[in-house]
Amino acid sequence: MKKIVKLFVLGAICVSFNAFAQQNADETPRVYDPKEVPKPMGMKPEMTEFWEPAVKVITPGKTVGEAPSDAVVLFDGTNLSEWISLKSGGDASWTVKDGYLEVKPGTGDIKTKKMFSDCQLHIEWASPEKIKGTGQGRGNSGVFFHEQYEVQVLDNYLNRTYANGQAGSLYKDMPPLVNPIKKTGDWNVYDIIFRSPRYKADGRLDAPAEVTVIFNGVVVQNNTKLLGITQYIGVHQYPAAHGDGSIKLQDHGDLVRFKNIWIRPL
Amino acid sequence: MKKIVKLFVLGAICVSFNAFAQQNADETPRVYDPKEVPKPMGMKPEMTEFWEPAVKVITPGKTVGEAPSDAVVLFDGTNLSEWISLKSGGDASWTVKDGYLEVKPGTGDIKTKKMFSDCQLHIEWASPEKIKGTGQGRGNSGVFFHEQYEVQVLDNYLNRTYANGQAGSLYKDMPPLVNPIKKTGDWNVYDIIFRSPRYKADGRLDAPAEVTVIFNGVVVQNNTKLLGITQYIGVHQYPAAHGDGSIKLQDHGDLVRFKNIWIRPL
Amino acid sequence: MKKIVKLFVLGAICVSFNAFAQQNADETPRVYDPKEVPKPMGMKPEMTEFWEPAVKVITPGKTVGEAPSDAVVLFDGTNLSEWISLKSGGDASWTVKDGYLEVKPGTGDIKTKKMFSDCQLHIEWASPEKIKGTGQGRGNSGVFFHEQYEVQVLDNYLNRTYANGQAGSLYKDMPPLVNPIKKTGDWNVYDIIFRSPRYKADGRLDAPAEVTVIFNGVVVQNNTKLLGITQYIGVHQYPAAHGDGSIKLQDHGDLVRFKNIWIRPL
Amino acid sequence: MKKIVKLFVLGAICVSFNAFAQQNADETPRVYDPKEVPKPMGMKPEMTEFWEPAVKVITPGKTVGEAPSDAVVLFDGTNLSEWISLKSGGDASWTVKDGYLEVKPGTGDIKTKKMFSDCQLHIEWASPEKIKGTGQGRGNSGVFFHEQYEVQVLDNYLNRTYANGQAGSLYKDMPPLVNPIKKTGDWNVYDIIFRSPRYKADGRLDAPAEVTVIFNGVVVQNNTKLLGITQYIGVHQYPAAHGDGSIKLQDHGDLVRFKNIWIRPL
Repeated sequence: MKKIVKLFVLGAICVSFNAFAQQNADETPRVYDPKEVPKPMGMKPEMTEFWEPAVKVITPGKTVGEAPSDAVVLFDGTNLSEWISLKSGGDASWTVKDGYLEVKPGTGDIKTKKMFSDCQLHIEWASPEKIKGTGQGRGNSGVFFHEQYEVQVLDNYLNRTYANGQAGSLYKDMPPLVNPIKKTGDWNVYDIIFRSPRYKADGRLDAPAEVTVIFNGVVVQNNTKLLGITQYIGVHQYPAAHGDGSIKLQDHGDLVRFKNIWIRPL
Repeated sequence: MKKIVKLFVLGAICVSFNAFAQQNADETPRVYDPKEVPKPMGMKPEMTEFWEPAVKVITPGKTVGEAPSDAVVLFDGTNLSEWISLKSGGDASWTVKDGYLEVKPGTGDIKTKKMFSDCQLHIEWASPEKIKGTGQGRGNSGVFFHEQYEVQVLDNYLNRTYANGQAGSLYKDMPPLVNPIKKTGDWNVYDIIFRSPRYKADGRLDAPAEVTVIFNGVVVQNNTKLLGITQYIGVHQYPAAHGDGSIKLQDHGDLVRFKNIWIRPL
Repeated sequence: MKKIVKLFVLGAICVSFNAFAQQNADETPRVYDPKEVPKPMGMKPEMTEFWEPAVKVITPGKTVGEAPSDAVVLFDGTNLSEWISLKSGGDASWTVKDGYLEVKPGTGDIKTKKMFSDCQLHIEWASPEKIKGTGQGRGNSGVFFHEQYEVQVLDNYLNRTYANGQAGSLYKDMPPLVNPIKKTGDWNVYDIIFRSPRYKADGRLDAPAEVTVIFNGVVVQNNTKLLGITQYIGVHQYPAAHGDGSIKLQDHGDLVRFKNIWIRPL
Repeated sequence: MKKIVKLFVLGAICVSFNAFAQQNADETPRVYDPKEVPKPMGMKPEMTEFWEPAVKVITPGKTVGEAPSDAVVLFDGTNLSEWISLKSGGDASWTVKDGYLEVKPGTGDIKTKKMFSDCQLHIEWASPEKIKGTGQGRGNSGVFFHEQYEVQVLDNYLNRTYANGQAGSLYKDMPPLVNPIKKTGDWNVYDIIFRSPRYKADGRLDAPAEVTVIFNGVVVQNNTKLLGITQYIGVHQYPAAHGDGSIKLQDHGDLVRFKNIWIRPL
C-alpha cells in the first residue's frame, strides 16, 4: 500500500514536471526527477586494455646515438654508397676519411638514393676547426628533408647571426628555443623527427610539415609547424603536392663534416 | 597623341568590362584587364631575417644524456634532496646506492619538491636483474607528470602485456610505436617532451596534454595528445583545471632503479 | 687614408671580439659589433599580395539556408532520388510529403548514393509534434558521416538525457557547448563542417576527424576532434582506413522529419 | 586431482616460454601463451554516458541570423551605444539610419566598448550601391578581432583583387575557399568563429589564433590558423601577449553599411 502511494506521488510530480516546467533561456533547468541523472556506471580495468595490434619489437643501439635495428644506415663512416651528387646525378664525391664525410666545396649538394617521408633522422656534424668567416659565412651547411625543408647547420658558437638562421633553426622560419651548440670544431648531434606535409587528392595543402629537433640532447624545436619550403629569399609557401623525397646535405662552401647518419621511417 | 589614344581604348575596355561582363556562377571569371593580375613583387633576403629576440645560449652536456647547463638536476646519483614521500609528506626513503635510486617497496611513491609544467625530462631506469612475475607484475613503475599523466615503466622484455600498458606507452592510453627495450636488468633511457594541458579561465579544458617520448634513442610517442589523466579503471578524462605539478615516480612493489634524472622547463 | 684607419680599428675590434669574448652559459651574449644586429629590412605592400590561384566564384543562396550554386542538393522537398535504403540496398521508402521527408519506422536507415569526404552539410530537422517517450526515446534520429560518425538528432526540449547524447552532441563523444533547441515539433537547422579522418598509406590513423556544428545559428561544436566512430557500447576507436562514404540518416523508430538537405565537398 | 595436473602442465609451459623464447629484433614475437592475449572486455552502454555537467539551455533566434538569448547585441539597428570612436575615444559618430549603421568617411574606425576573446560573431554588411573605384578601392572595410586580426570586407563582386585581400579573406594571410559574394549593394552575412591566440605566462606565443568564416551560408575559412596580426606591409607576426580586446570596424573611406551585429563569448 505504502509503495502504491509513493508511486502515485512520483507520477504526479512527473506529470507536473512535463506539463508546467518552464525552460528558462540561459539557464540549465534545475529540476529533474532525480532518477534522470544517473552516475556513470563503473567499469573494470580490462575494459581499457588493448592487446592488438601487438607492438613491434626492435633492438636499440648499444650506446645512445647508435642506430637501432630498424634504422636505414645512411652513412656508417666508410663510404657514400647511399648518396648521389645533385649536380651530376652520379656518385657523390664528398671526402670520406677517419669515419666521417666532409663537404668538398664546389662539388655541390648530395642526397640520398632512398626516398623518405615521415621519419626520425640521427645525424652528427662538426664545423671546421679553423675558424673562417663570420655570421652565415662560418661552418654553413644544412640538412634538408624532401630536399627542400631545411634544418640549418652553422657554426654559431660565439658567432651571432639572425635568430632564424642559426644552428637548430628551421632556416628563415623558426629560431631554436635555445642555442646548445658545441665549441667550434666539436661534434654536434641532431635527432630530428620530421612529419611531411599532407596534401589533398586535388593538390591543395592539407596539413603543414612538423619538426621536432633535439640538438645535443636539448629540445630546440618542439613540433614546430613549418610555414612552407625553405627559401633564401621571400615568404615561405608550400610547393605543389609531392611524395617521398631524399635527404639532402648542403655544400655551402665550408668544410663541414658529418658522421653516424641513420634514419627510421615513421 | 598615341598615348592618349591608348588610354582612351583602355578606358573603353574597362567600361565594357564593368558594364557587360557576366559573373558565371561556379566559374572563376576569366577576363581581366591583365594589369589587374600582377606577379608577386620580389623581395630581398634580409626581409625574412629576424635578429631579435636573441636566442639564449646554453652549454650542452659533455656526453649525450648528460644534463645541459640550464637543466634542474633531480637526481645526480648521491641523494634524494629534491624528492619527498607522497605517503608521509616527509623525506623520500627509497634506497640510494651505487649512483642510482631504487624503489623501496611499501614506502609508496615519491615526487619532486619543485613543480613543473611544460618540460623536457631525461630519466634512466632499469628493471630488477632477477626476473620475477609476468605481465604487469614484472619491473613495474611509472613516471608521472603533474603526478597524474603517466609514461609507463615496465620490464616487458620477452614479457608481453596489453599494448597500451607496456614500457613507452602512455598508460592505458597510447601504445608505443615500437618496443626498443633493453634486456631485463639493463639501463633504459627516456627523453620525454611534455606539454601540459591548457585550461580556459573558467576551468574548461582548452587543449589536451601532448607527449613525445624517445626511448633508448627511438621515437615511440610523437606528439601524442593525451585523452586525460591516467586511470587504471575507466575512461580517461581531464581533471579540474590545475597549475604546475610534481614529477612522481611510482612504487609498484618492484625493485626498479632510476638514475641521471634532469628536467628543463620549456 | 682616413678610410684605411677606420678599417684597421674595426678589424682590431673584430679580432678582440673573437679572441677574448666569453660565452657564458645560460646567458645571451650581450656584446656584439652593433653592425651585427640589423633591423629587419622594410617591405612593400605588394610583397604579401597573392593573386594566384584565383578564388572560384559561386552564387550564394538567395536567402540564408538556401543551397549555393556549388552545392549537391540531397533533398529538395520532392523525392528521394539521391537516397537508398541500407536494409534493402534498393529505393529509400521513407515518407515524402509537404516538402519534407519523414522516417518510416521499421524500414531502416537511408543513405546517399553519392559518396563524400570533407564537406559542409546543411540539414533541417523536426521532431514529432506529439510528444512520445522520454530521454533517448523522444524524437531520436541521427546524421552520420561515412555512415559511422554521428551528429545526434533528438528532441531534448525539456527532455534531459546524458550530455553527450543530446541534440548537437557527437554521440557518446562530445556534448554540445549549449543547447539551442527549438520547441518540440519546430524546425531546427544544422550546418555541419566535417573533416574526415586521415590515414597513412599503411592503414594507420594519421589525423582524427574534426567537426564543427552550428545548431540554429549557434556554435555547439567548434572543430571538435572525434575519438573514433560512434558506438552505442564501448570506447570509440577508429576503424580500418576508409575512403569516401555516404551520409546516413537513422531510423530510430521515431517520426523525425528532414528537409532542405544540401552538401558541399570541401 | 585433474585440476592439479592441469596446473602443473600450465606451469611447465610458462617456464619453457620464459626460458627458451627468442626475441627476434624487428619482429613482433609470435609465440605466446594464448591466455596472455585476451579479447577486450565487453562494456555496457551506460559506461560512456555522461550526464554532468549539464548542458546550458539557450533560446535560439526565431529566424536564422537573429540573436540567440545568450548573445551580446552590438547593434540592433537603433544606436551606437555599444561603440566608441578610436580617434576621439568618445562617441562613435558613424551614421545610423533605416536600421543599419554606415561608415562616415574621415571619422575613423569604431570599436566596441566591451572586450572579447574567443567568440562567435554575426555581422551583416553591404557595399555602396553605387559602384566607385576598383580593386581594394571599392566598398572596402574590415572586421577586426582584438582590433588587429582582420576579416576583410570588400565589394569584390566582378571586381578582382589579390586573392588574400578579397571579402572573406583573412587579410594578407589566407584567401577564402570560394567567393560567394552578393551583388554590389546587396546584404552579405558573416558568421565568424574566432579563437584568440594563446600566450605562455612568460609572454611567448603558445598557440595561434584560429578563424572559421561562414560567408552567406558558405564556409570560406575552416579553422584557419592565423600567421599573426594583420599588416598592410610586411610579414605577419604575433604581437606581445594581450588579453581580451574590442571588435573594430574599419573606416576605409567607403560608405559600407553594417547591421544585425551580435556576439557570443565561447
